[in-house]
Amino acid sequence: MNLLKERILKDGKIIGEDILKVDSFLNHQIDVKLMNEIGREFKRRFQGEKVTKILTIESSGIGVACITAQYFDYVPVIFAKKHEAFNLDLETYEADIFSFTKNKPYRIRVSKRFLSSEDSVLIIDDFLANGSASLGLVKIVKDAGGRVVGVGIVIEKAFQNGRKVLEKENVRIESLAVIKSMKNGEVIFD
Amino acid sequence: MNLLKERILKDGKIIGEDILKVDSFLNHQIDVKLMNEIGREFKRRFQGEKVTKILTIESSGIGVACITAQYFDYVPVIFAKKHEAFNLDLETYEADIFSFTKNKPYRIRVSKRFLSSEDSVLIIDDFLANGSASLGLVKIVKDAGGRVVGVGIVIEKAFQNGRKVLEKENVRIESLAVIKSMKNGEVIFD
Repeated sequence: MNLLKERILKDGKIIGEDILKVDSFLNHQIDVKLMNEIGREFKRRFQGEKVTKILTIESSGIGVACITAQYFDYVPVIFAKKHEAFNLDLETYEADIFSFTKNKPYRIRVSKRFLSSEDSVLIIDDFLANGSASLGLVKIVKDAGGRVVGVGIVIEKAFQNGRKVLEKENVRIESLAVIKSMKNGEVIFD
Repeated sequence: MNLLKERILKDGKIIGEDILKVDSFLNHQIDVKLMNEIGREFKRRFQGEKVTKILTIESSGIGVACITAQYFDYVPVIFAKKHEAFNLDLETYEADIFSFTKNKPYRIRVSKRFLSSEDSVLIIDDFLANGSASLGLVKIVKDAGGRVVGVGIVIEKAFQNGRKVLEKENVRIESLAVIKSMKNGEVIFD
């Protein structure tokens, strides 16, 4: 998706060897117009697929997931919770995840009320890095007996092993920008 | 906003005396169609106001803020961060907040790159309870030298003192559903 790649080249900042900072349009400040183009592109990629729910993970996935849902007949968006709270159900589907940007493990949860064997779920997330978050979301859909339509990723870092991890689960992956390398402070797309 | 009130009566669950659980359409599963009606209503309430940015707080505010931004000429959405991460700027506007649902204090941060004295900011959040989160967002806009257009709230619990706290800051508040009481397991609107 050229518009997205151009934006990454213009506004993305590389930190160290493997972190791409896109906080000016994706995960701190959100460019809602760009999110609409992204939602439209996910619809094009998953054209013809039956989708009953979109599943993402707090916080960075929520904006893009909500906008994308508008292109899929306004299906409900569910975001997996990373933090415990009084108001979360006790009955949850869970997965353990290792955060790449926070360098620590955490558990994600989705209330059992919101996913079932009737669901065809499109998973949406901002990044595919080591694949841990997406894999956790796939596990949650499968634990609920639902079908994973695919995983839609805004930015994939192809030099990490997320795709390999997900392919073992036989899951279709559609990434809108695939980065092959970020060496010497330069983003090279696949 | 009748559609929202009806939905609260239908799907809201009261926990204890003062927590309203609306996780089936607002803050765990998100009804994107309803969010669009909410966005449209915020636009109606703030009609004629100049808005350059929408500011919210992770995670529950993000969905409604992004959808609402579409009704305000697709202005950027910024969400204040609750958690530290490698990829957050060191230069941030900050505020300390006390979480009602988590019963603990935390610090929110917004990168200084995203707010300035040029900005007219609409603050959007899912709940107004004790006012601590909204007050923190108001402080951040003012610290940046920006103008607070107003605070748009999906659900206000009028039996807590959030409105009083915000009115001291001379901030306009527009709440789409105002709950007067939740005694005996019954939601009574204002």
